[in-house]
Amino acid sequence: MFGYVGKCLKVNLSTGKIQMYNTPEELCDEYLGGRGFGVAIIADRITREYDSPEMPLIFAAGPLVATSAPTSGRMSVISRSPLTGTTFDCSVGGRFGTELKKAGFDLVEITGISEKWVLLNINNHHAFIEEAPALVGKNTSDVGAEIGKEGSYATIGLAGEKQVRFASIVFDGHYLAGRGGLGAVMGAKRLKAISVKGNGNISVADPEGLTSAREEIMRLLRASPAVFGEFGLSEFGTAALVDLIHARRMEPTENFRNTFFSHASRYSGYAMKTCYKTKRTGCAGCPILCKKIGTHGEIIPEFETVSHFGALNGCSDLSSIVEANKICNEYGLDTISAASSIACFSEIEGKTISPGAMISLLIDIARREKGIGKSLADGSLRYATAMGHPELSMSVKGLELPAYDPRGAYGMALAYATSNRGGCHLRAYPISHEILRKPVATNRFSFEGKARIIKIAEDLNAVVDSLTACKFVFFAASLEEYAKAITAVTGKNFDVQSLLKIGERIWNLERRLNELNGFDISDDDLPERFFKEEGTSSANIRIPPIERNAFLKAKNNYYHIRGYESGE
Amino acid sequence: MFGYVGKCLKVNLSTGKIQMYNTPEELCDEYLGGRGFGVAIIADRITREYDSPEMPLIFAAGPLVATSAPTSGRMSVISRSPLTGTTFDCSVGGRFGTELKKAGFDLVEITGISEKWVLLNINNHHAFIEEAPALVGKNTSDVGAEIGKEGSYATIGLAGEKQVRFASIVFDGHYLAGRGGLGAVMGAKRLKAISVKGNGNISVADPEGLTSAREEIMRLLRASPAVFGEFGLSEFGTAALVDLIHARRMEPTENFRNTFFSHASRYSGYAMKTCYKTKRTGCAGCPILCKKIGTHGEIIPEFETVSHFGALNGCSDLSSIVEANKICNEYGLDTISAASSIACFSEIEGKTISPGAMISLLIDIARREKGIGKSLADGSLRYATAMGHPELSMSVKGLELPAYDPRGAYGMALAYATSNRGGCHLRAYPISHEILRKPVATNRFSFEGKARIIKIAEDLNAVVDSLTACKFVFFAASLEEYAKAITAVTGKNFDVQSLLKIGERIWNLERRLNELNGFDISDDDLPERFFKEEGTSSANIRIPPIERNAFLKAKNNYYHIRGYESGE
Repeated sequence: MFGYVGKCLKVNLSTGKIQMYNTPEELCDEYLGGRGFGVAIIADRITREYDSPEMPLIFAAGPLVATSAPTSGRMSVISRSPLTGTTFDCSVGGRFGTELKKAGFDLVEITGISEKWVLLNINNHHAFIEEAPALVGKNTSDVGAEIGKEGSYATIGLAGEKQVRFASIVFDGHYLAGRGGLGAVMGAKRLKAISVKGNGNISVADPEGLTSAREEIMRLLRASPAVFGEFGLSEFGTAALVDLIHARRMEPTENFRNTFFSHASRYSGYAMKTCYKTKRTGCAGCPILCKKIGTHGEIIPEFETVSHFGALNGCSDLSSIVEANKICNEYGLDTISAASSIACFSEIEGKTISPGAMISLLIDIARREKGIGKSLADGSLRYATAMGHPELSMSVKGLELPAYDPRGAYGMALAYATSNRGGCHLRAYPISHEILRKPVATNRFSFEGKARIIKIAEDLNAVVDSLTACKFVFFAASLEEYAKAITAVTGKNFDVQSLLKIGERIWNLERRLNELNGFDISDDDLPERFFKEEGTSSANIRIPPIERNAFLKAKNNYYHIRGYESGE
Repeated sequence: MFGYVGKCLKVNLSTGKIQMYNTPEELCDEYLGGRGFGVAIIADRITREYDSPEMPLIFAAGPLVATSAPTSGRMSVISRSPLTGTTFDCSVGGRFGTELKKAGFDLVEITGISEKWVLLNINNHHAFIEEAPALVGKNTSDVGAEIGKEGSYATIGLAGEKQVRFASIVFDGHYLAGRGGLGAVMGAKRLKAISVKGNGNISVADPEGLTSAREEIMRLLRASPAVFGEFGLSEFGTAALVDLIHARRMEPTENFRNTFFSHASRYSGYAMKTCYKTKRTGCAGCPILCKKIGTHGEIIPEFETVSHFGALNGCSDLSSIVEANKICNEYGLDTISAASSIACFSEIEGKTISPGAMISLLIDIARREKGIGKSLADGSLRYATAMGHPELSMSVKGLELPAYDPRGAYGMALAYATSNRGGCHLRAYPISHEILRKPVATNRFSFEGKARIIKIAEDLNAVVDSLTACKFVFFAASLEEYAKAITAVTGKNFDVQSLLKIGERIWNLERRLNELNGFDISDDDLPERFFKEEGTSSANIRIPPIERNAFLKAKNNYYHIRGYESGE
């Protein structure tokens, strides 16, 4: 039984030196855990290249992990992205965070570059480095078969070994630190995998307070149509979004040339549930269980994945899309960047791509092989720039955009631009307001009030990623309940305002770190297409281009609210 | 300027020793060249394993090569098949045979196993072995880019390196020693590639006689609807057959469960010509130019390939089929065995396979990776046997059947069974009689007269493969004209009967060699399905199962004509 503050593990792969120290209490107070820990620790080395020995790769759990707080089975991975060059964190599910906390550690900070490929083994207060020649060249399920028998593990596949710039890290078979290429950072360090096993328990300051917070959250969750409703996340997973986005004519189609794909119903949540007779699975300690597995063990893809291997590439064949997702899981590859890079290639080459050719090219990318596979392994922006068409990379700060066309949700447009890790839907997720109407509905075709919504949501999500909790709970519960939970765990007083203050601190630090790497407000922008070309309209819904001036005004307003100099 | 009889090159990769000797005149008289040479030379070592150092791999040109005889740009590759265990020869086009002859060599016999991966370099009377570390792991187009700048080359891709049992050898980018896994023999020897360059010219005994034979053949070719007609080979390539076979309800569909695929028109010769705006290309010295290339350099697949990646796997997406063909060319893989192994897997697993999953599995096979890719890399018969269902491997002697359902052509049924290299359409090609009505039409649903037709066609094709000429010419010309050509080249008297005698000698030797490896008449059989299940019938055409007794009677008749003991 340990308190909620554990130890930090520091591993230098160049020297083989392993150190442990108590997690500083100020770090907990100022940065909570998870993403907050990561950005605080990386700060003094952020200008190093992603593949330099000094660059840290950090795996950090939050204070709620391994407690009875709902959706507390998550953690964060943090480093500098090989794709965007920004500071980068990914929130990951599975069991890794829980095992890490139970082993006595809040975080693992890895620096250095090993001479040979190694496995880091963490077991109840102990850690050691082993050479792992037998794991090299293996894809993620084969690594899992070797080291995943107990506890939890994180591994890269071949894409990470080859430093594909959007290689992911795969946890426990199908939880991914998906975006931004943190798998390539792991690959650059010649760290093939980490296994972790812990048997300890976490004592909390006020168990009754935690139980009461937990019950409040559970009650809200159970009452939420978005989560447990007939068409909700628990029933269909994130693919529940396919129909919602389709109906609103905002599904990125053929590299964002259109916003409507007539075959989308073939890969809707309902279609996949019917075809694969899915069952639920999910992270340690989660009541929602949003992940879906088919009767023959097929891993059912997420919304972003079906939409981008589907509409974005003009592919209507569900089973080929499921195959593409499997390949990304096996090789360790971000599905969004992979599918987007292929769609960008198709537009530049003036080709339509067949399901077969899509899979073939995807494998070339994952292996960083052949001319075109090699170029696309650097991401769509580097590829499109080399081809003389940077404007056809549908990315922000080099991170490929997910499956919400910004012409159909102006809050999302602003959030893509201001996101400090590039074109990401999860920094603010205004879709919640604009499409799901949570907590209140807003007009999706207007920038009115969006700057403030985005600012607050960005801070909120920085808190969520540091606690470390799941964003899906916030369709139902709010920071109010989580403030009670964290207060009960730590015995220190947190409220919504103090938590948002921490979120803002994390956000501003991330922004400052990006500035140190040369980013400025000119990088807070969207691809030209969205300001010039219409989306696909229907009788009821017109999808015009976004007015550039309205966008710039909203962005300046956002800077003003943030207290940044605007300068535009 | 050399005579038509050149030298033999003997290379031992274990010792690095290279020898040359004059091609014995008796060998020429008794076995002509090409396939005949190969089977004569391999005879004393045929019981060795394919990967033993003693097993020869032979590349042999025929006496017409590099002369002005039409379609004389071919050659043969001979060894023992890793897939079937039989003696095995492949007839190949391109420029390799021509360059070899012009370099002064009739054949190259390679034995031994190199310690490191090597390239064999043949240049005008000289040959040397070079280490080739930079070529290892490369696929065939990348090897071509390195060594294919002048002359000709033969190489294996990754599939050959990994000894996939149906790995092919790729010549000059897209001419294949496709079937039977001779690429794996090359891989077992660690011979990555051969490059050959020759500048000599071949003197012929009677140039005027050769010109006259050539003109006769050309006149017949030009008059042939099958070759130069509106729907012929020159216009559409072998894919011209798609519509013919489709209309007759004899296209193997879903692992031969059905014989009609409603989407076949999507990959007909006409469809591919329209989609890819193809142009003609072909072997050195060929007037037909049956190969087709798309405007963006796409290699257009052959009939067997489109039909098997199409109907046999239930795939109607042309562009995925073209992709599958490209992968087979790149990795060096027999398209017929690859597509059939995947179809066999689908039936055993009770799955329908998507285009994407088909491509993904194909790449796993080519790389001999992951559980299922590894099993299928041993061919459908070993896989199906391991799964307890040998009857679902649609093969004869372990060689997967091509794209003519034997229930729709009984001559083909008999020819599949008696073929001494396993389930092959090219040993006798009775399709010529049964479908193309050349030289005369026969009833495709009867065994009447087929035993004799097959016997003669087998002998004839042994001659054609030894000359070395192209089987397509024989839709128009006959052995009569070729007897004149070979007489003119050699100055020795050949006529149809003496040539057929040589063909029979080659055939009987091959059969004897198979007997030495344990084959007997029980191996001259077809998968049970063809005797038990109906094909797909239409209003006009019924495709019943073949009557086993009629088949056995025809087979005994064949043995009788051949002068073999029947014993059934």
